[in-house]
Amino acid sequence: MGSKLTSRKADYSKWYNEIVVTADLAENSAVRGCMIIKPYGYAIWEKMQAELDKMFKATGHENAYFPLFVPKSLFEAEEKNAEGFAKECAVVTHYRLKNDEKNPGKLMVDPAAKLEEELVVRPTSEAVIWNTYKSWIQSYRDLPILINQWANVVRWEMRTRLFLRTAEFLWQEGHTAHATRAEALEETKLMNQVYADFVQNYMAIPVIQGTKTASERFAGAEETYCIEALMQDGKALQAGTSHFLGQNFAKAFDVKYATSEGGLEYVWATSWGVSTRLIGALIMTHSDDNGLVLPPNLAPIQVVIIPIYKGEEQQILIAEAAEKIKLSLESKNIRVKFDNRDKFKPGFKFNEYELKGVPLRIAIGPKDLENGTLEIARRDTLSKTVVSQDKIVDFVQEQLKQMQGDLFDNALKFREENITEVNDFEEFKHVIEGQGGFVSAHWDGTNESEEAIKKATKATIRCIPLNNVEEEGKCVFSGKPSIQRVLFAKAY
Amino acid sequence: MGSKLTSRKADYSKWYNEIVVTADLAENSAVRGCMIIKPYGYAIWEKMQAELDKMFKATGHENAYFPLFVPKSLFEAEEKNAEGFAKECAVVTHYRLKNDEKNPGKLMVDPAAKLEEELVVRPTSEAVIWNTYKSWIQSYRDLPILINQWANVVRWEMRTRLFLRTAEFLWQEGHTAHATRAEALEETKLMNQVYADFVQNYMAIPVIQGTKTASERFAGAEETYCIEALMQDGKALQAGTSHFLGQNFAKAFDVKYATSEGGLEYVWATSWGVSTRLIGALIMTHSDDNGLVLPPNLAPIQVVIIPIYKGEEQQILIAEAAEKIKLSLESKNIRVKFDNRDKFKPGFKFNEYELKGVPLRIAIGPKDLENGTLEIARRDTLSKTVVSQDKIVDFVQEQLKQMQGDLFDNALKFREENITEVNDFEEFKHVIEGQGGFVSAHWDGTNESEEAIKKATKATIRCIPLNNVEEEGKCVFSGKPSIQRVLFAKAY
Repeated sequence: MGSKLTSRKADYSKWYNEIVVTADLAENSAVRGCMIIKPYGYAIWEKMQAELDKMFKATGHENAYFPLFVPKSLFEAEEKNAEGFAKECAVVTHYRLKNDEKNPGKLMVDPAAKLEEELVVRPTSEAVIWNTYKSWIQSYRDLPILINQWANVVRWEMRTRLFLRTAEFLWQEGHTAHATRAEALEETKLMNQVYADFVQNYMAIPVIQGTKTASERFAGAEETYCIEALMQDGKALQAGTSHFLGQNFAKAFDVKYATSEGGLEYVWATSWGVSTRLIGALIMTHSDDNGLVLPPNLAPIQVVIIPIYKGEEQQILIAEAAEKIKLSLESKNIRVKFDNRDKFKPGFKFNEYELKGVPLRIAIGPKDLENGTLEIARRDTLSKTVVSQDKIVDFVQEQLKQMQGDLFDNALKFREENITEVNDFEEFKHVIEGQGGFVSAHWDGTNESEEAIKKATKATIRCIPLNNVEEEGKCVFSGKPSIQRVLFAKAY
Repeated sequence: MGSKLTSRKADYSKWYNEIVVTADLAENSAVRGCMIIKPYGYAIWEKMQAELDKMFKATGHENAYFPLFVPKSLFEAEEKNAEGFAKECAVVTHYRLKNDEKNPGKLMVDPAAKLEEELVVRPTSEAVIWNTYKSWIQSYRDLPILINQWANVVRWEMRTRLFLRTAEFLWQEGHTAHATRAEALEETKLMNQVYADFVQNYMAIPVIQGTKTASERFAGAEETYCIEALMQDGKALQAGTSHFLGQNFAKAFDVKYATSEGGLEYVWATSWGVSTRLIGALIMTHSDDNGLVLPPNLAPIQVVIIPIYKGEEQQILIAEAAEKIKLSLESKNIRVKFDNRDKFKPGFKFNEYELKGVPLRIAIGPKDLENGTLEIARRDTLSKTVVSQDKIVDFVQEQLKQMQGDLFDNALKFREENITEVNDFEEFKHVIEGQGGFVSAHWDGTNESEEAIKKATKATIRCIPLNNVEEEGKCVFSGKPSIQRVLFAKAY
């Protein structure tokens, strides 16, 4: 504590890593690319899980749990999916260690315990789940199946960053089965909307909903819907995806259902997921050079009360008043911490909770006791207000609400200022290299132009926005005819 | 549906498997020894998680998340722990698959992607966590650390059974670090008490608290506390364990703290866990030949309402009344399902919810509409009562409470009837082979006698009960002097 963070301007990436570690959110582990999510970081994830879980259940989904391991023969059944994940998966080949006789006290893989078939640690669960749905689905009466799973998954990424890209991460994955194409498409869109609602209303992050181009789609999907957010450094971040899988997995695993008319049809599928990566988006949308800034709706601690006193007598009187305030706030379901630790000075605590992004800080000292007042500081604006103790509950409620709204509004304003319409490729490169942000430009719809743009600028097509206005134009790269603008950006 | 379960008397083991599958709790997967927890089974686990999580937090613990993988060098650091788990662990040796050129469309492990150091899929997380605590703990100010993790773990068991013993299972594992031996011991006992409270008050399963003998201890523990339950077939089941780890892991990972007096000491540790195995205990304690019986405190559905009607007009009127009852019950936080599916007959539904162990079933038909009544059936006693609609909320609340208590009382009575004091080995064998249950007998405290008894009878020492009365006697096997009786049983 006490040491300052690197500023965002000086080194955004370094600033990010420092926040994650100094705010006690997560740290690297002894396992390459795997992180340890510390209690404070995990408490944020728990809040996110709780809200998402409610939303999933309110839309008719149930939770279940499927195995961590995917036998290689199932893994390879849906070819595109397998191809997409084969290069980055952890493979279990043995089921036993034995004493290493050459190195006493050490263990070695027991060659006699080689598995007949290798097991892939799930990078995603379509294969294992569709292999199961095969036996769950016989007729239209068994549909739809609306299941979600909270789980860990492993993708052997070469370059990892805390929360944003880790070899193991936590996520939820929805896997649904439907009788018709239309119903599956509706589900895909519904869940993308659920994600948008969650990210905007709880995380205070504005998102653009859209679909991915063929090259950016989930391996095995016919269409990928997504929500895209913009970080402070002008790079985009894919915050959630919802996939329309068509009948690809049903065909790969031979999942058919008897229709009400007596026919036999392949089942239609969707899958959708968000992960601990969202915590990275949360940090990079709201935080500042003083540390983390958390939206009240997700903050594990919404209000911290810090006593300021000299001597034990004062401490006792102030603690009494503070406990009373704590109780009155808690009666309104506000999450409050009273930090009465004697071994740390108020200044140290101020710094700690600023770094940890606690939305509101109440300081209470001897003068406040005399005057019946309190000092309240807001984390986002750093503004301080002296408030009468008997008005504190209303004031806190209003400030939390205000702060939640302000964070969203500021992020939205930033994003709006950072969507640039461009019409030629020089300008495109200029914006991408300079200001960054989303570039709205015409694209001819071909993979060739998309690839060439990516190669030249590192910008990818983040999405084709939903409800895009059709507009005749010329591809910013090839000059060929185009019917709409799409959003480009460099991305996390 | 409709087909009868095997009776418990005919084949207890078969009955158990049939309940798990027909009540839609879980099923085997394509992965050897790994199960799929179906939505209804998972909903029970979610209720258990929610209650346990509250109890952990109320006792000062926070959740966090540590990596799935343990590098072999960390795994082998605490020798006894490593030895205990080495023979049954899944090992990741490679991080990539590639196209198998000899078999188009198939994949193979890429030999070029061999890991420098193998990764063990965690069978338990002491190693990875204590390697982390090393950097979290410098001084007495950093203690205690009170952390819990909800996670999946893998133990490559050769003989697996749904819920009871699976290669992958879900659990929680608490890992705490303390400045003193006394504080760590107190934590160990506290968490064993928390488990006892949960299992007794929510699962309605009476347990005996005790400690394990040296041979039954957790690998790496100095003392293992446990809660032991008795199943209907007379076999015991270890429902939870809480380990006092002494300084074993602190020494293995060199975790020392500066004391307030300026010294440097090794840290004291505990770990404790319960798993999805508890669902097996739940089934085998309360269920009957008609199917599952769930204690109301954990039942995902506490009350099901089934309409009985002929024709659409009746259906509409009855649905209206049923919805009203549902709302009035829900206003008291009772979990209610109104099953208005038209494609299934009432008898089919009765059977389904009986099989699924829903505590109370309300049937409402045209006569009930006329008379302002309802028929309520209790799952455990199968008794039916006609109740006035305006008394339904009170009646249901009282019945749920009554049933929760009755299930516990019946299980307790069964257990008390199945603890037999024996004083010679012939009687010991006779009871173990016949009635089963717990046998309370003198033991000389040696591993030799314990092993010999196990070899002769398959019974193990389940625990040395806490607050055991000291009583001079002679070991039931060796005849050597003994100071107390211990509990033997065959066990799951």
